[in-house]
Amino acid sequence: MRGVIAGIDIGGTNTDFGLVADGEVIWQERLPTKRYPDVRVLMNTIQQIIQLQLDQQDLKLLGVGIGAPNANFHTGCMESPPNLPWKGLINLKEMVHQRFGVPVVVNNDANASALGELKYGAGKNMKDFIVITLGTGIGAGIIVNGQLLIGHDGMAGEVGHTLAIPEGRLCNCGRKGCFERYASATGLKETITELLARPGATSSLQHIDPANLTSKQVFEAAQQGDEIALKAFDYTAAIIGRKMAEIAAYFSPEAIFFLGGLANAGDLLLKPAKDYMEEFVLYLYKDKIPLLVSALPDNKASILGAAAAVEEFTH
Amino acid sequence: MRGVIAGIDIGGTNTDFGLVADGEVIWQERLPTKRYPDVRVLMNTIQQIIQLQLDQQDLKLLGVGIGAPNANFHTGCMESPPNLPWKGLINLKEMVHQRFGVPVVVNNDANASALGELKYGAGKNMKDFIVITLGTGIGAGIIVNGQLLIGHDGMAGEVGHTLAIPEGRLCNCGRKGCFERYASATGLKETITELLARPGATSSLQHIDPANLTSKQVFEAAQQGDEIALKAFDYTAAIIGRKMAEIAAYFSPEAIFFLGGLANAGDLLLKPAKDYMEEFVLYLYKDKIPLLVSALPDNKASILGAAAAVEEFTH
Repeated sequence: MRGVIAGIDIGGTNTDFGLVADGEVIWQERLPTKRYPDVRVLMNTIQQIIQLQLDQQDLKLLGVGIGAPNANFHTGCMESPPNLPWKGLINLKEMVHQRFGVPVVVNNDANASALGELKYGAGKNMKDFIVITLGTGIGAGIIVNGQLLIGHDGMAGEVGHTLAIPEGRLCNCGRKGCFERYASATGLKETITELLARPGATSSLQHIDPANLTSKQVFEAAQQGDEIALKAFDYTAAIIGRKMAEIAAYFSPEAIFFLGGLANAGDLLLKPAKDYMEEFVLYLYKDKIPLLVSALPDNKASILGAAAAVEEFTH
Repeated sequence: MRGVIAGIDIGGTNTDFGLVADGEVIWQERLPTKRYPDVRVLMNTIQQIIQLQLDQQDLKLLGVGIGAPNANFHTGCMESPPNLPWKGLINLKEMVHQRFGVPVVVNNDANASALGELKYGAGKNMKDFIVITLGTGIGAGIIVNGQLLIGHDGMAGEVGHTLAIPEGRLCNCGRKGCFERYASATGLKETITELLARPGATSSLQHIDPANLTSKQVFEAAQQGDEIALKAFDYTAAIIGRKMAEIAAYFSPEAIFFLGGLANAGDLLLKPAKDYMEEFVLYLYKDKIPLLVSALPDNKASILGAAAAVEEFTH
């Protein structure tokens, strides 16, 4: 019987999960997170789907790794994630352990991705790097001396809630001007809405209901030369560039990797972001730190990373 | 013959050095850094003074640790320190090794202090904490998972050159608004100068030549209830509080320690800084991270820390 680890990545839009053996995702599935107003129902469904696979493929489950926003490595709990439908303190570790009966490791979703990059991605030969997830929200997984930076309270890497614009947009966390309100997929949409509200603005994006606008549509408009879309990417790139200049001074990383919806904009976002970063950064770090798109595919990175955490922390 | 390690801390004002055995500074001395326009002459002088002690006390030198601003652990070099009289790339490691003939470990001065706190101070039982040095400039030594955060290029922890005020005061590094331009001893003096320049300002500090004003004098004026001095401390505390809120989100530390001239203002600075921090910080970190004055005496911490680095990295 082949041993496998299950990786579950709970995201603001989708929950991806799969089975990992020898550093490969051998099977995976996806459920829409917001369709589950009760997290226990989501976990029951995932447990049933995974159990079916284990039985059909004659596999033995060795552990479960979970990546989730605002999840705490030490307590195994998720604390009122601002971008998810569930409120209060949710003990994911216990909830999943009860259902699967194997060791469970809970991690911040960005931390899980960083571990995936460290074990299976372009970070394999690096000891100091950062993974930034630009999704519904923003997270950061930080590798220092070849280890995950978890922090005393298990809540390190909340880069999404560091300041980007003093007295700026109101954030879900109750504060103003957070990086996440500008450089996430949600932030990009807010930028578009602001730019479209300016007198005389014309754009192909005007014909899309703002509630349904996706960052992919903004990306496509920018590729067609749409001025508003290009302006929005430039504004977002400036904010990312300035934040990466700060991160350079704190961590002196070998590289910064990007993952998630917005990261797929690639050169349209990361090339100008790199230029802005070089403009703002302290001379000590100039031309030293590349901004790269993660080499791991989006939905695989998070599953691999959640599973990698089980190997890292249960042996 | 008793084995000792020499610790040398090169600061913007003074260079402290001493001999360490069994975690104690058994002898120490100080030279004024700016009197030495050639760093080699300073190192010759230190070597001669230390050699005399070794001979007199019948001690055997096992290694030398150096803490210096902008010093790079990996290369052993100091790169154009903005607050020192020496320009260009200075290979401290080679320079000191040639003179002493023992293993030499070079570190950023704040990193050295953090190692001192970890080995001999209040950080002994902590795995994740930060030491901020508020001297002529500002540095940070960051301990993650019980290890020093050095960074890929050896230049992590340059918190003094992260942004405090967008488009703010011009910094020695050529950029604007750096934290160091506000929260260092130099920054406090600039704040006083700005406040005194306002129409109608009255203060006991008006009678002191700004070039000779010390942070100790500002501290004493504030204790006497001088309004300008109190305002300057409040302004500095707000900037420190906001920066510590950012640091909380990056590192989730167990505590933040302060060291250096301004840290000695104690409650006058750190108490309001803590209040501002709690006002700005993300809810996840509220009331969790104390701001503390380092328990190690200023000039001993840096010598101990420089020496601790030798134990940490040569075994």
